[in-house]
Amino acid sequence: MPVTKRTPIPVSEAVKSIMSRTCVWETEEVPITECDNRILANHLIASHDVPPFDRSPYDGFAVHSEDTLDASENSPIKLQVIETIGAGQVAANKLSSGNAIRIMTGAKIPEGADAVIMLELVKEIDVDGKSFIQIKRTLKPNDNISFKGEDTKEGTVLAKAGTVITPGMIAVLATFGHHTVSVFKKPVVGILSTGTELLDVNEPLQPGKIRNSNAYMVAAQVKAMGAAVKLYQHREDNFDSLYENVSECLADSDIVITTGGVSVGDYDYLPAIYEKLGAEVLFNKIAMRPGSVTTVAVHQGKWLFGLSGNPSACFVGCELFVRPVILSGMKVKKPHCQILKAELGADFPKPNPFTRFVRAVLTEGINMNSVTPAGLDKSGSVSSLLAANSLIVLPGGTRGWEKGSEVGVLTWNGEGSEWPWDSPLFSKSSAIKTAEKQP
Amino acid sequence: MPVTKRTPIPVSEAVKSIMSRTCVWETEEVPITECDNRILANHLIASHDVPPFDRSPYDGFAVHSEDTLDASENSPIKLQVIETIGAGQVAANKLSSGNAIRIMTGAKIPEGADAVIMLELVKEIDVDGKSFIQIKRTLKPNDNISFKGEDTKEGTVLAKAGTVITPGMIAVLATFGHHTVSVFKKPVVGILSTGTELLDVNEPLQPGKIRNSNAYMVAAQVKAMGAAVKLYQHREDNFDSLYENVSECLADSDIVITTGGVSVGDYDYLPAIYEKLGAEVLFNKIAMRPGSVTTVAVHQGKWLFGLSGNPSACFVGCELFVRPVILSGMKVKKPHCQILKAELGADFPKPNPFTRFVRAVLTEGINMNSVTPAGLDKSGSVSSLLAANSLIVLPGGTRGWEKGSEVGVLTWNGEGSEWPWDSPLFSKSSAIKTAEKQP
Repeated sequence: MPVTKRTPIPVSEAVKSIMSRTCVWETEEVPITECDNRILANHLIASHDVPPFDRSPYDGFAVHSEDTLDASENSPIKLQVIETIGAGQVAANKLSSGNAIRIMTGAKIPEGADAVIMLELVKEIDVDGKSFIQIKRTLKPNDNISFKGEDTKEGTVLAKAGTVITPGMIAVLATFGHHTVSVFKKPVVGILSTGTELLDVNEPLQPGKIRNSNAYMVAAQVKAMGAAVKLYQHREDNFDSLYENVSECLADSDIVITTGGVSVGDYDYLPAIYEKLGAEVLFNKIAMRPGSVTTVAVHQGKWLFGLSGNPSACFVGCELFVRPVILSGMKVKKPHCQILKAELGADFPKPNPFTRFVRAVLTEGINMNSVTPAGLDKSGSVSSLLAANSLIVLPGGTRGWEKGSEVGVLTWNGEGSEWPWDSPLFSKSSAIKTAEKQP
Repeated sequence: MPVTKRTPIPVSEAVKSIMSRTCVWETEEVPITECDNRILANHLIASHDVPPFDRSPYDGFAVHSEDTLDASENSPIKLQVIETIGAGQVAANKLSSGNAIRIMTGAKIPEGADAVIMLELVKEIDVDGKSFIQIKRTLKPNDNISFKGEDTKEGTVLAKAGTVITPGMIAVLATFGHHTVSVFKKPVVGILSTGTELLDVNEPLQPGKIRNSNAYMVAAQVKAMGAAVKLYQHREDNFDSLYENVSECLADSDIVITTGGVSVGDYDYLPAIYEKLGAEVLFNKIAMRPGSVTTVAVHQGKWLFGLSGNPSACFVGCELFVRPVILSGMKVKKPHCQILKAELGADFPKPNPFTRFVRAVLTEGINMNSVTPAGLDKSGSVSSLLAANSLIVLPGGTRGWEKGSEVGVLTWNGEGSEWPWDSPLFSKSSAIKTAEKQP
């Protein structure tokens, strides 16, 4: 196979071309006990007021506020306790002047009552076998009442489709009786590792070979993005069997990720496979390091991601290009990695002819975040992936960076970004400004 | 039951008393495909060098660097290609002077070779049916070789027990052949909701009643912390049956969380249940809002968390007190919520006689984080939990806070804190300083 010339495009262009093709995944109903971290497929709308009735925020006594008009420290007023209602009970009696009803936190305010006084603020007394309370302060109408709908009015849109389901949202779903919840289906990602040098994880090492680590890593990455995973491994060194394997994988998945075989080496069959499939290649060369040969194609409504076989390049490609496809398909508003600013904790002397993504350890500080390259910065490095929780983004066309420079960082742990690629942090001019600040 | 006087202790004291009792959970082996987000139970140690052999970082040709000593643009040298090896293959021949071996990315450097030249930098020619390459530049010994062990040396401790398993770590686990991984077992958390006012999530609303939302919320919270969950619901209004229910729940769980029934109302049976069990109550009153009546007890090596029935108080109690028990038991070094600084996005006019935790929306900004109270700040509020991704911590003894003040924030989404409670952000003096800065 000849060495093909490919024209590199900027990272932002590559991501843009992906975003112009994203589709929306199907939806499904899951039990409320299993909806954690899934994405809402429908708007969550309040189906009744919250609270659903006027209720007491405290344990105490429901009273007529008028009865307390003359109450004071020196001349307490006395009310007869005619009933006790627990939470979930409803008063049997209408409250009339001169009386009080003992009420628990959350219980419905009895008819006729217009205020509640806390348990701790009354004196309970017993007269001839009848219960009374003494009150030493004046209450106003509506004192200590949580009103129907004061928290949430019926019909309010509480969360939109595309929102991740948190514990707090689960409380709200339960409040409104959603024992099942409509969420986006997990798209199925088939992960196909290629490479005759790859041993499976349970095989002993052999001369010249290494264990497959990319497949397990990418599986964990896309699971964290909300996808389901099928693992495939291909080790034969021939075009036809790989073509068959990719086709099979495509039939069973919404997204096919291959690792390796995408470059211009003798055994890099993927470009020819895209061609034989008739897949539309969105790009096959990006002005970035690592992962410049990352290739993305679409075919009959499905996605083909040709990631590099180098672990770090593979990791970066997955976060930059696969993430927004999975999350946009669930209507997530911030489908890209979170962008943050941080102070570079060490010199980075290499020049950056292209945009460089450096695996890094980001520490969120009280006053300023700091970020330091993680381990060996070679695209084949495994150890650097271990500690990394972020990527330093060094704009293309910049020279080495000094410790203390402010840099843009992408992290997959945050809430995400709507579109990080326009950020001034990622532009060459930001680098120049930072450089001028150096002593 | 009489209104019992309880003595409130500071939040930090409450957490400290919990931390003095934490235990370590058991461990188990799980397949590498299911270890995502679990916590390493053993140190991860490199069982061999990475790379395991000297290898080529590029597709190219392995050569003797000496052969290229006289190579130049105008007088290229010529080497005969005697073999082609793919990744995973090992050269059959030893390389002798005047020859080259075609080599793929990741392949083992053949014996006798001491440098690699990239595919793109040579000219391949054919002479009498034999393959040759022309090289126009000088190579030095070791050029373009990834050396055995340069990434990671055998025996290196790559991650300690107590570290969360990320996709990057999974790549490393696979590299070293861990097809199963030793992780901490998920502690079993029994969640027992009490309250006669509670309907289950699938029941229609009834006068005076509300659906149980706390149980599902707390279940999602502790699952996110790494625990397994069993749900129980108790609605009878009598001490004996609740005692029986708590006992049963204790027998089946490592941690029992009850919601409701922990205050001083007529139906708050939990204090008496702790007493009858003979459980040691660590505290039953905290100088905080919401959740001042949160009670924590230990009994025969198990934990009893008596959280308030108010959703927000319940949420806060779970994050502050249950989180570190679950995570310390997995040797996690930062078992508490992450602390961050943020600018208050709205006035908070209420005074804070005690430390106040305000459910809030934190937005991580490029230059400064901002934080705004979420929805209605009442402890019974459900809607405020929906949007909240953090808690603003307002130190006790402070008056209202103005928009623009710098405040301390706790969030459950970050990497955690080792001990946030000593932070100057949580001290009253920080509030005073901030106040002075106001115009």
